[in-house]
Amino acid sequence: MLLEAIYHRPKQNWCYAYDERTIHIRIRTKRDDIDSIQAMTGDKYAWEQTLTYIPMTIMSSDELFDYWECEVIPPHRRLKYGFILQKGKEKLWMTEYTFLNEPPENPDRLFDFPYINQVDVFTTPEWVKDAVFYQIFPERFANGDASLDPKGTLPWGGKPERENFFGGDLQGVIDHIDHLSNLGINAIYFTPLFTATTNHKYDTEDYLQIDPQFGDAELLKKLVSICHERGIRVLLDAVFNHSGRTFAPFVDVQKNGEQSRYKDWFHVNKFPITVENGIPTYETFAFEPLMPKLNTENPEVKAYLLKVAEYWIKDIGIDGWRLDVANEVDHQFWREFRQVVKKTKPDAYILGEIWHESSNWLQGDQFDAVMNYPFTNATLDFFVEGSTDAEGFSHAIGKQLARYPQQANEVTFNLLDSHDTARLITLCKDDQRKMKLATTFMLTFSGTPCIYYGDEVGITGGQDPDCRKCMEWDPKKQDQELFKFYQELIKLRLDHRALRTGKFTFLASEAGQTTLAYAREDDQEKFVILMNNDSKAQSIKIDIEDTQFMDVHSSKTYAFKNGSLNVKLLPYESIILKAIR
Amino acid sequence: MLLEAIYHRPKQNWCYAYDERTIHIRIRTKRDDIDSIQAMTGDKYAWEQTLTYIPMTIMSSDELFDYWECEVIPPHRRLKYGFILQKGKEKLWMTEYTFLNEPPENPDRLFDFPYINQVDVFTTPEWVKDAVFYQIFPERFANGDASLDPKGTLPWGGKPERENFFGGDLQGVIDHIDHLSNLGINAIYFTPLFTATTNHKYDTEDYLQIDPQFGDAELLKKLVSICHERGIRVLLDAVFNHSGRTFAPFVDVQKNGEQSRYKDWFHVNKFPITVENGIPTYETFAFEPLMPKLNTENPEVKAYLLKVAEYWIKDIGIDGWRLDVANEVDHQFWREFRQVVKKTKPDAYILGEIWHESSNWLQGDQFDAVMNYPFTNATLDFFVEGSTDAEGFSHAIGKQLARYPQQANEVTFNLLDSHDTARLITLCKDDQRKMKLATTFMLTFSGTPCIYYGDEVGITGGQDPDCRKCMEWDPKKQDQELFKFYQELIKLRLDHRALRTGKFTFLASEAGQTTLAYAREDDQEKFVILMNNDSKAQSIKIDIEDTQFMDVHSSKTYAFKNGSLNVKLLPYESIILKAIR
Repeated sequence: MLLEAIYHRPKQNWCYAYDERTIHIRIRTKRDDIDSIQAMTGDKYAWEQTLTYIPMTIMSSDELFDYWECEVIPPHRRLKYGFILQKGKEKLWMTEYTFLNEPPENPDRLFDFPYINQVDVFTTPEWVKDAVFYQIFPERFANGDASLDPKGTLPWGGKPERENFFGGDLQGVIDHIDHLSNLGINAIYFTPLFTATTNHKYDTEDYLQIDPQFGDAELLKKLVSICHERGIRVLLDAVFNHSGRTFAPFVDVQKNGEQSRYKDWFHVNKFPITVENGIPTYETFAFEPLMPKLNTENPEVKAYLLKVAEYWIKDIGIDGWRLDVANEVDHQFWREFRQVVKKTKPDAYILGEIWHESSNWLQGDQFDAVMNYPFTNATLDFFVEGSTDAEGFSHAIGKQLARYPQQANEVTFNLLDSHDTARLITLCKDDQRKMKLATTFMLTFSGTPCIYYGDEVGITGGQDPDCRKCMEWDPKKQDQELFKFYQELIKLRLDHRALRTGKFTFLASEAGQTTLAYAREDDQEKFVILMNNDSKAQSIKIDIEDTQFMDVHSSKTYAFKNGSLNVKLLPYESIILKAIR
Repeated sequence: MLLEAIYHRPKQNWCYAYDERTIHIRIRTKRDDIDSIQAMTGDKYAWEQTLTYIPMTIMSSDELFDYWECEVIPPHRRLKYGFILQKGKEKLWMTEYTFLNEPPENPDRLFDFPYINQVDVFTTPEWVKDAVFYQIFPERFANGDASLDPKGTLPWGGKPERENFFGGDLQGVIDHIDHLSNLGINAIYFTPLFTATTNHKYDTEDYLQIDPQFGDAELLKKLVSICHERGIRVLLDAVFNHSGRTFAPFVDVQKNGEQSRYKDWFHVNKFPITVENGIPTYETFAFEPLMPKLNTENPEVKAYLLKVAEYWIKDIGIDGWRLDVANEVDHQFWREFRQVVKKTKPDAYILGEIWHESSNWLQGDQFDAVMNYPFTNATLDFFVEGSTDAEGFSHAIGKQLARYPQQANEVTFNLLDSHDTARLITLCKDDQRKMKLATTFMLTFSGTPCIYYGDEVGITGGQDPDCRKCMEWDPKKQDQELFKFYQELIKLRLDHRALRTGKFTFLASEAGQTTLAYAREDDQEKFVILMNNDSKAQSIKIDIEDTQFMDVHSSKTYAFKNGSLNVKLLPYESIILKAIR
């Protein structure tokens, strides 16, 4: 056994309460190194009477490691535990202190999960597990009220530039709500709606007002109400890391300098407020003078932003917040934010924008989920760039699944593109077959998928600002076949719980291969998805217990023969099979 | 390079803000496997202009791993980073995603420390770095006011039983304050003082009153004031996990059952309140019916306990809290507790009783430190039990040092015995030479040492209740030579900052050996401590740059010869050398 590869540490993703009765335990070992692992578990105050051995199974793997997992329901909410690792005749007991060749004499030096306190249990909203999100960049979705257009608004459909406007607004969203219902999505994530100077509105001027070019709070309330009637939830974007330069307190600081009563609302390193050699004399987002960093440690600022957080949920009815540049704001602020938000609406969704490892925000006291860019990268690397093979892809996904507690994985925000990236179809060099494969993976994978507005009708676009083109509303210019593809896939996901929350397992993901097979399964149904990520036809063979499957699209049946299932796939084809039971 | 052994994860002990400007980065590799590591660091928004390579050094090692560390002061409080590992001609770049054979093209997939927010920086009290604690079990320290003695109090010095009383009290501490000053300690940790029925007082009846057998709040205030005049800080024991059975709210629940307005102050699984087959129908500490677990999630309970936390600091002047069974109370409660305590006294010390891995409490939002029982175990294993050799000891210590951020290590509460364990001298089977070696290690090691009352005069005692004997006040029965040993060692520690906060390094800790050498060094002084943990005389040879040393006790000088220092030690002898510069 390679001892150096074995890793376990209490809490985080390694030992956590999944609910108020259940503890999940995980351990990492070198890939393919260990035959079996048992968790030895018991109550610390009644060890001998409660000692129980629980077999662990491999939950996922990556290029170096296997990740094992088991579930325990301790009799008294407390858990003392260790591991028994076996490889051939070699057997080791792992304690918090060391590895032993025989069972530990007493439980004192084992690992400890002290007590499941309900308030510490990381609980994520049920509805998010069943959500399919649609991201709207409001300035570019639909112009429903020309009277609100800012001066210089260009005709709909022009070339997007960093600073131009096309007049998208909330009425436009209301006018096109049928499009969203037809597509089948059940949640919208809006990039910022609050008053700001730019077209993207990430430079907030007033956190308590809808930008006049989009409408007003009443109109948003109406929109939310219309959405709710159709079973669509609404997520807004909270830009709390920084404000805009026209935010009244910052205007005051610019005007009054050190005498401003708002000077501690920001992080001013040196007065006067200016930019020296490209670097502002105050902290900003990146080095952007337009976006002064808010001092979220200041009780006044905190009170103000927490009021904002509460207002849009309580008075307007939104269902949660996406948090911009979330990792640059202090943890203390987010803890209080969670308290306020969850008190206002217990099942509100709190989604942080973090592109990196996010464990410290996903422990139950801060966010429910983060934007899963490691998923994005893994999926694009395999399906779009071709820079990894099926094995590499399965490793990247496997690593990501092992990284966070299960409840975080259940609502992790999976996306393939956004207002911050080039569009998927453009990354695919307009090859819709690739786009569809990647999208099929996202929509049959665990977590919460999100579709970027317009992808479903074939809008293209490179990096920002090109990815922020006006939505195409001319039915003749919309790719109807593509829309139908999205529509069917979303319906399939929403019709089958197994595709949303069922156990995910790779069935075929070989080195050097471009074919992929994986299963989604719950207590009711089982799906097997086969993919050929290659420009040539490929056969795929999987060993599986079930004897008969049906293609969910063509209804063609596939039978298990001689211990395996053999399917031939066209170039870039995917087949979704459902086990017939 | 053994890739499976390499471990890094942002935050925790692996990448954290040490202060508001400085970030510490650590990485783990297989022991003796890698020649050198550099951290590649820079600002994420100005990568090329700020890219800096920082060499890492090994901070500690254990049986399997080396732990490397470096310090970075990022130009804009943000840090993007990766690692360059080198072994011979082999060179690897480690990113958040994978290992590369060449430098990453852009920093997007490197690790990220998003921003140093001041409020998140884990800050521990300066004074604790310089503290030598003395633990007092008040019922057994000194009886200064016989009028307070509970009924049935036994004559001082009798055999301690689970339920007997000897009349120790606060006046007794005041009367003997010179003993503490003479010993030289500068902080006292009192086990519980609040009204309770038992002799140990861990079954609180009233958190706002000193137990009448000890005195009252005014007397404690006087004691605290006397201590402060002498530069002695005072830590009280907060038993917030559970109350006693006579705590008024629990009395009410016992009396009124489901009708009690206090029923949600506890965790009652089933009314009536009773014990079935040894298991209470309500949650308790262990299965102890006397100690009902408090519902610290209940806002009323929280408000009450936080008022308690504030009161004894604000009104009485204590310097911090030791938290009993701290890990079974919810994290949320401790976060609010820290806010209240630090607001009341910013340099109050918050010390959790946790016997296990405690990372999740040592991130800056909860405790300053925990009772370092892994240190206790390592030290006893080597010096007392002889169950490990010098190498094993250095591994256990090395592992412990790597486990937490430096600021936690600086104030970690190191102890060799307590009211919960057998006494050190008894564990040593009355061999004072062993006791002195272990104590010398503790008092020349980093962290905050604590001496259990009476150890310094030779009181013996096995497991609880035997370890809670009455303090010996007859000078003829006190071991004066032992007292002097403690006194000199404490003075030495307090006279030399290097022995408190200087860098700790093992110089000799070989497999199969019982001799040990280590250094403590800061910018002013350097000490080398040599120990022979053997019943036979042993020579110890160390390679060291400094040329001349002086024995701090005998003033004998030792010279560096032929590239090394060679010293012969008597059985169980230790020598503390100071470099002459």
